[in-house]
Amino acid sequence: MSHIMNTHQRIEFFDTTLRDGTQGEGVSLSVQDKLFIAQRLDEFGMDYIEGGWPSSNPRDEEFFNLAKSIDFKHAQLCAFGSTARFPNKIESDANLNGLLRAETPVITIFGKTWRFHSEKSLGLTDAENEELIFKSVQYLKSHGRKVIFDAEHFFDGYKADADFAKKMILAAERGGADIIALCDTNGGSLPHEVSEIMKDVLSTVSVPVGIHAHNDGELAVANSIAAVRAGATHVQGTMNGLGERCGNANLASIIPNLILKLKREPMQEALHLEKLTALSNFVNEILNLPSNTRSPFVGKSAFAHKGGIHVSAVLKDSLMYEHIDPTVVGNKQRVLVSDLAGQSNIRYKAAELGVDLESNKELAKKLVDHIKKLEYEGYQFEGAEASFELILRAELGEFKPYFSVLDSRVHTEYNKHGHHAAHVMLKIEVGGEIEHTAAEGDGPVNALDNSLRKALTRFYPEIADIQLIDYKVRVLDEKQGTSAKVRVLIETSDGHATWSTVGVSTNIIEASWQALSDSVNYKLFKLHQGNEMTV
Amino acid sequence: MSHIMNTHQRIEFFDTTLRDGTQGEGVSLSVQDKLFIAQRLDEFGMDYIEGGWPSSNPRDEEFFNLAKSIDFKHAQLCAFGSTARFPNKIESDANLNGLLRAETPVITIFGKTWRFHSEKSLGLTDAENEELIFKSVQYLKSHGRKVIFDAEHFFDGYKADADFAKKMILAAERGGADIIALCDTNGGSLPHEVSEIMKDVLSTVSVPVGIHAHNDGELAVANSIAAVRAGATHVQGTMNGLGERCGNANLASIIPNLILKLKREPMQEALHLEKLTALSNFVNEILNLPSNTRSPFVGKSAFAHKGGIHVSAVLKDSLMYEHIDPTVVGNKQRVLVSDLAGQSNIRYKAAELGVDLESNKELAKKLVDHIKKLEYEGYQFEGAEASFELILRAELGEFKPYFSVLDSRVHTEYNKHGHHAAHVMLKIEVGGEIEHTAAEGDGPVNALDNSLRKALTRFYPEIADIQLIDYKVRVLDEKQGTSAKVRVLIETSDGHATWSTVGVSTNIIEASWQALSDSVNYKLFKLHQGNEMTV
Repeated sequence: MSHIMNTHQRIEFFDTTLRDGTQGEGVSLSVQDKLFIAQRLDEFGMDYIEGGWPSSNPRDEEFFNLAKSIDFKHAQLCAFGSTARFPNKIESDANLNGLLRAETPVITIFGKTWRFHSEKSLGLTDAENEELIFKSVQYLKSHGRKVIFDAEHFFDGYKADADFAKKMILAAERGGADIIALCDTNGGSLPHEVSEIMKDVLSTVSVPVGIHAHNDGELAVANSIAAVRAGATHVQGTMNGLGERCGNANLASIIPNLILKLKREPMQEALHLEKLTALSNFVNEILNLPSNTRSPFVGKSAFAHKGGIHVSAVLKDSLMYEHIDPTVVGNKQRVLVSDLAGQSNIRYKAAELGVDLESNKELAKKLVDHIKKLEYEGYQFEGAEASFELILRAELGEFKPYFSVLDSRVHTEYNKHGHHAAHVMLKIEVGGEIEHTAAEGDGPVNALDNSLRKALTRFYPEIADIQLIDYKVRVLDEKQGTSAKVRVLIETSDGHATWSTVGVSTNIIEASWQALSDSVNYKLFKLHQGNEMTV
Repeated sequence: MSHIMNTHQRIEFFDTTLRDGTQGEGVSLSVQDKLFIAQRLDEFGMDYIEGGWPSSNPRDEEFFNLAKSIDFKHAQLCAFGSTARFPNKIESDANLNGLLRAETPVITIFGKTWRFHSEKSLGLTDAENEELIFKSVQYLKSHGRKVIFDAEHFFDGYKADADFAKKMILAAERGGADIIALCDTNGGSLPHEVSEIMKDVLSTVSVPVGIHAHNDGELAVANSIAAVRAGATHVQGTMNGLGERCGNANLASIIPNLILKLKREPMQEALHLEKLTALSNFVNEILNLPSNTRSPFVGKSAFAHKGGIHVSAVLKDSLMYEHIDPTVVGNKQRVLVSDLAGQSNIRYKAAELGVDLESNKELAKKLVDHIKKLEYEGYQFEGAEASFELILRAELGEFKPYFSVLDSRVHTEYNKHGHHAAHVMLKIEVGGEIEHTAAEGDGPVNALDNSLRKALTRFYPEIADIQLIDYKVRVLDEKQGTSAKVRVLIETSDGHATWSTVGVSTNIIEASWQALSDSVNYKLFKLHQGNEMTV
């Protein structure tokens, strides 16, 4: 029996962030984390959410218990596990029964389709492995579940012995499997191989066939697309390509490629492509992983234009330099200020701030030269837009610092008892009045932060609202050892808006001070401008 | 005229890390950085190194000047630029002449092959654009250079109007172009499109054709491979996929895929695939970018096995779970041990240092607990192996610190004249004798470094040899703002060996002090052990 190869069928998306994704190094999810992510995946419009392996660890078991009371709007929850241990002990198999106890509408089980594995890992003959697969699937089906069979190592297995591999998936089909997903478990297959093998499989089985790729060759997305073009209608992957080794196939890249480029329709009318970027960022946040700024489609830099030539073209017509409209995936266009850019970039950023430099070329040039000089010294205004704005406003004569430092002494001591302390003495001047104060802190920068607030509070009570929420240090020229310049980036929030500032010096305290100082000045500038903080 | 499609020809690799790679957000390279990278790319065996755009900025011009005195072993240096500004002003064109002045054996120029661009961006008719390309290439060829023509936006241009696109590259060929590289500048093409279009181009021109892909769809590697399978013999990309937006095609993934999977041979007999991982890490280090642990082939996690099932299988037979032998690309297999099996990992690392913990389970456990506690506090011993060794040796009773700190005061001041200074007063004890000294520095950490040396010199004159060559700071929990813990990693050298140490604290000065202190202790330990420094 074979498929009529239908390359216009809707595609279903199977998200295994919560199962395969958690195999990645440094990834750890609590049960609550998993529930939050599951909810967001459902809202996005995923067809399946593979929640974990209930028999394998208590956290996953707990997840499935709690998930029973979730009313998923679109997604079908799926529990994952392996085929039974022995082909002649199916009904008593702990793993299969654990899967049933999870009470999910869908169950995925993986089975060996590479003889190398079934022989060496499980010690089974061909017939035994076939029986194991058939009976495991059949048992689960007899309990009314939808069953997806993950054909483990399928592509390697097929290349080693195609008949064996196909025999195994036919056994799964006979057992009643609703979907057969071919897994490139070692991640080493190439797209043309996936395509050829997928076509053969589609002429062998009648049920829908899926693809589960891994990124060991940086080809998981391509392999998934090749599989779909060859007739697969079910794609397994994770958000942001999370997963063991080099990760699973990245659904955040696959989904927009299939929908926008191949014009394939998702199974869910309700798939919200415009929520993709937010979903991607959410998953990274929950995992406390830094977002990859260069991620296709969803990355902060995905539609960020830097080179001078590009920028003027982009401003003319975005199609010239963007392969899709970023808003379709919930992302946005950015124009970066940098030393590779010329006046266009700075004019653009000024325009973003409501400042028209077109009519003032002399000022524009002065600003460009000033920015370039600072960048040469190590300042970076990407990611420090508030510092950039202060420079712009200062050149325009719209901003003057709200305080000046007369004297600042930072003192850290460490003695033989292992006790260390940091103190700051700060003398500032505001409108002719002098404030002289001292403060302590966990470290010198924290002490500076504390002393600055203390000193400014009576002049500017609004300072109390602001809080540093992010603090980054980069050593600019590590080869200089401890003499190297340091760049500090600070992110501040007042509960409504957040803004970023920068400082550079060979002295890390001085660098931190500049960034802190800009941060406070920026808040005060915005306040006195009467503006809403819109950054 | 057309190619005999030869899918067995050797492939040449064109590295544009130093040009297109630098367009990436947050990427900034000094001239010295570029020279270092160029050297390593040459040692690796790249065929071409595109060094920059000499007419576009002074740093690139300086690079090409200095590069004139480099004797590249294998690679041909290449300067990049655009076609002339006007088709009727070729000989006087500043850009073309700037390219010639760089005196490189190879020049790449890019030209418009998408009418959308030549019309709207350059304001040229078809004939004018054709003439521009032809004459620009011809001019450069007349000066004896090898010329590569980058057909900008070729795939979008071809899809919009194939005849126009082909007409433009034929013009380049007529002008004498040695190679024509088709660029997927917006990065949105799919592999099957690249394949079809490449085949048509190969039946249109006679010169070798190359591919220059971008990763906006997470398909740059796949597109490059598809192009090669279709007959391209020249692949452009960057190390680690650096580049604007989502990056360029990643040569670190393309090269092993082509050589190991497609069994294609590189043009250079001297291409050292086993140096790939080191090269990748080197580029990240120089750029001060964190390495992506999940990078295919070269990432730290690329061959790291976590799940329990995998681990026992991997130890049996690596082919079961690895798509290639990691050592072929200079990487290595790692078995990640869960918290429950921490002892294996520590035993392994101790064995690396010639210390046998097998026979002393109690000590092993004590060490594990100590290391775990420190890691929980933020210490990291990968990349700080000297600190690890000191802990191990201390537990074994083989090491005791060579000095103790009685008192240390670090003082930074900043006054209204913008003057800042850092002073350290240090009181240490060595073998009952007290040394009390003071020193200045560019910043507090530098001052500490200087004072420690000053204090120890009369006891341990060998200290004079050591030099800090690398200093990294990472804020461990940025959400804590200025109260966050900081981890400092220091790399030290004595001219023969280099070693790394770590320090963690909420106080950056304290953290730096720990790492400095370990660094000096380690040198002294090795010296007094009578060992060669083998780390």
